[in-house]
Amino acid sequence: MRGVLGDHDRVSTSSLVVRQEEPFNGEAPLDRLLDEFITPLHLFFVRSHGLVPRIDPASFRLSVAGRVRRVLSLTLEDLRRRFPRRVVTATLECAGNRRRELIALRDIPRELAWDAGAIGTAEWIGAALRDVLEEAGVGADAQHVAMSGLDRVAVSGGETSFGGSIPIAKARGEEVLLAYEVNGEPLEPMHGFPLRALVPGYIGARSVKWLGEIVVQHVPSTNYFQATAYHHSPAGGTGPQISLGEINLNCVICRPRPMEARAGDRVRVEGYAIGTGARAIERVEVTADGGHSWHSAQPDVRAEPWAWRPWRLDLQSSPENTELVARAWDSTATTQPKDLATTWNIHGYVNNAWHRVPLRRRT
Amino acid sequence: MRGVLGDHDRVSTSSLVVRQEEPFNGEAPLDRLLDEFITPLHLFFVRSHGLVPRIDPASFRLSVAGRVRRVLSLTLEDLRRRFPRRVVTATLECAGNRRRELIALRDIPRELAWDAGAIGTAEWIGAALRDVLEEAGVGADAQHVAMSGLDRVAVSGGETSFGGSIPIAKARGEEVLLAYEVNGEPLEPMHGFPLRALVPGYIGARSVKWLGEIVVQHVPSTNYFQATAYHHSPAGGTGPQISLGEINLNCVICRPRPMEARAGDRVRVEGYAIGTGARAIERVEVTADGGHSWHSAQPDVRAEPWAWRPWRLDLQSSPENTELVARAWDSTATTQPKDLATTWNIHGYVNNAWHRVPLRRRT
Repeated sequence: MRGVLGDHDRVSTSSLVVRQEEPFNGEAPLDRLLDEFITPLHLFFVRSHGLVPRIDPASFRLSVAGRVRRVLSLTLEDLRRRFPRRVVTATLECAGNRRRELIALRDIPRELAWDAGAIGTAEWIGAALRDVLEEAGVGADAQHVAMSGLDRVAVSGGETSFGGSIPIAKARGEEVLLAYEVNGEPLEPMHGFPLRALVPGYIGARSVKWLGEIVVQHVPSTNYFQATAYHHSPAGGTGPQISLGEINLNCVICRPRPMEARAGDRVRVEGYAIGTGARAIERVEVTADGGHSWHSAQPDVRAEPWAWRPWRLDLQSSPENTELVARAWDSTATTQPKDLATTWNIHGYVNNAWHRVPLRRRT
Repeated sequence: MRGVLGDHDRVSTSSLVVRQEEPFNGEAPLDRLLDEFITPLHLFFVRSHGLVPRIDPASFRLSVAGRVRRVLSLTLEDLRRRFPRRVVTATLECAGNRRRELIALRDIPRELAWDAGAIGTAEWIGAALRDVLEEAGVGADAQHVAMSGLDRVAVSGGETSFGGSIPIAKARGEEVLLAYEVNGEPLEPMHGFPLRALVPGYIGARSVKWLGEIVVQHVPSTNYFQATAYHHSPAGGTGPQISLGEINLNCVICRPRPMEARAGDRVRVEGYAIGTGARAIERVEVTADGGHSWHSAQPDVRAEPWAWRPWRLDLQSSPENTELVARAWDSTATTQPKDLATTWNIHGYVNNAWHRVPLRRRT
């Protein structure tokens, strides 16, 4: 099956910075990302590993199988009518967000050079995964919930669907949805129409688009995108790989853009911070004098457990300094690594080094 | 009430490194801390803010009140007989662990200079807090579970009992105990006899000793040790304070001790790592050449969700290098800050900078 995307299906992607034409991959320009707390869909990043499948909503069925007492085959109407309608405000972030900075340090071949806009926040609407699992009746030995899409993706050695799994405890969280709407609209084809998983607090890859199959099982998914890709491999190439799941603490300056503000000027700095899982952002700090002094930013009044925390700060930059630097602290007083040399890894995942924006020199 | 401690009540503390005589505070010497996965009690750190209270177990009552349907007054026999006996292997770590390194960078007055031995792992036995809460019947508006001890502690402006609170969601975790035994023995007076809280994954301060009162409430505890102490204040003195709860990712070299091994020699390195909450340790790395190359350590075969992960590694140190450095990575690919300049904070809490052990120069 080859995906086909008609013009009438295509979400407007003209606002996105294109990272790949086919399959389409694009992210928000950083100077527009924080226009609103809820990211409008034309600014919501698109991460696709294959072409967008065309799915007939009338014949669509979600299969729920594996270690369950009752195998289910659910229509979209079933999902809308038989399960409570849940709304979750949640941020999705690609595990490759901020890879561009790592690549600047040392090349990372065959991976997309995302800036810091592969992230977005939306109001997701759907059935809670746990409600569906409850109807299926999960076996006592269930450990993982594997999900796979109706798309086809070329991987080394053939073709597969996109897929991945989450631990059963996460699957039972009320925040995990089978989403059929976003921001009050039906899903766009590029964002997973007619159904996608929404796994807040996890790398975007686990929010499987074009979701067609759920399998409750004893082991993690053996799908390529769980078992092989999205692993954090140490820079040296040897040592244990980390299969990514929960997203890590991060903080990004969205405005000003690089070389836009001038050293020595008073500058308004705006950005986003995001916590690990549901862990809250407790402090965002910016330095404009090379770390001699750190200034606390003002967080957005809106605090949602599964969403980013936009922030802003007016500060006087030092004439001698060359950059603005931001970092966040969470409720465990965890902060981010200072250097890209620490966060650099073979495939360039989950870079969360202190974010730096260069300033123009005074002339 | 002044605490009185008879000789027959005193756990042997002769193995501990004394940080304060009265109230007694002591920690394990690092070269003995990892002799066993389960820390023997004579090596288990003691953190006391006041004198050890003498409590008659026969007249002891645990009060459970606040937003509950039934106020409870439980004897030790009630706790042992009316609730299932639970065993949890868990590490407790003082929020001040590793403050000594911070003090070496810049003084921190009026706080204990803990090395990295204010940590220990035990098999805790008791009733699950959630089982007791279930019997009391928690109100729908409950948000926090406050706990306070039967001790008396001098604080500025008077005397109080030691106390603190945890969020209701944590209190419902099966790992949180009202512990009456540890490592197969009744609690020692210095460790909270006859009853203490055991809150795995949280700073040690939340595992309230000599526990006498539980109050289910809408707000966090206003006890001094929750509302004022155990806050992470930024180094600059301004900016939001972080009320500590979950402990953060950490990693320590226990052997060799400073100046014990010689640069250029082959050396066996041993230490512990501990994850944030239940987040697993996925990788421990040691460098013996200033970060040019990092080597993965071998984790202990025993992996318990709420306990530390001992590790070891044999490696060749560089003749030119002056130190061994260790860091851990968790399942979100979070690692620790490189420098004490980042982790230094006003009261010296939760220091988790890369741990460094100096080597002797070759002569």
